[in-house]
Amino acid sequence: MAAEKFEVEPVGHVRGGRSEAFDDNWGAVEAVIEIEERFEPDSLAGLEEFSHLDVIYVFHALGDEPITSGARHPRGRTDWPKVGIFAQRAKARPNRIGVSTCEIVRVEGRNVHVRGLDAIDGSPVIDLKPHVIEMGPRTDVHEPPWIVDLMAEYWDA
Amino acid sequence: MAAEKFEVEPVGHVRGGRSEAFDDNWGAVEAVIEIEERFEPDSLAGLEEFSHLDVIYVFHALGDEPITSGARHPRGRTDWPKVGIFAQRAKARPNRIGVSTCEIVRVEGRNVHVRGLDAIDGSPVIDLKPHVIEMGPRTDVHEPPWIVDLMAEYWDA
Repeated sequence: MAAEKFEVEPVGHVRGGRSEAFDDNWGAVEAVIEIEERFEPDSLAGLEEFSHLDVIYVFHALGDEPITSGARHPRGRTDWPKVGIFAQRAKARPNRIGVSTCEIVRVEGRNVHVRGLDAIDGSPVIDLKPHVIEMGPRTDVHEPPWIVDLMAEYWDA
Repeated sequence: MAAEKFEVEPVGHVRGGRSEAFDDNWGAVEAVIEIEERFEPDSLAGLEEFSHLDVIYVFHALGDEPITSGARHPRGRTDWPKVGIFAQRAKARPNRIGVSTCEIVRVEGRNVHVRGLDAIDGSPVIDLKPHVIEMGPRTDVHEPPWIVDLMAEYWDA
């Protein structure tokens, strides 16, 4: 069966923050998510009652970087195991979609001021969802040691 | 500035589970995420080392249900506040994208067996990411009382 394709239209963009992606040190980065003018500011009504936001965005700056779906070492680190694209969160992935949780600083009109979003300036945002505690795991969580290593300085200031 | 549109191609589909969406009682639902044949099984290599999966999928069964972005009462509950579409996780939203965390039961070939995924049979999946503890909130989390009420029976068996 052929896979159906979908068209996705950005609901907004990331403004400010970093202009290039770096592997680490995203924790103190401040940016604004500016929603499109076709949405009224009341599309954000009530968002400030939540402390955190889940942002779904596009890794638009990748260009034509090839997407390797097969198993490889994350960040080229041969001391970490080879894992497939669906077992890691690398940017060069099918559909180039990132999902990230950041802190809501304040909401002003069509602008959501955030802290600790790992998306660069100009990133198209395809959805915003309030971060809901109950949507997290309902059973014990575990993960392999390599991802703990990888994340060690990710949010450092 | 006109918003650029993107084409998104499913990486797989949800097979099994519920055939219709209900508001509640998703916790015990078991389903399989079957990835497309254009991906080798090793695109899932290492995923079983994680206990949970973040699934990005499309609410494809909505049809032409209109999308209200302005403030409204979630589930029509007038005892809850009016909130905008970006302050709730309702299905009828711009780009109709859902993000959900479920338990990984096992991985077999191109199939990921999961428990507690709130997506119905046939849902197109546009990305799979391992659930990484460190990607969660780094500061204290709070949310308004209405969402705690809304989620009260969401994961009940």
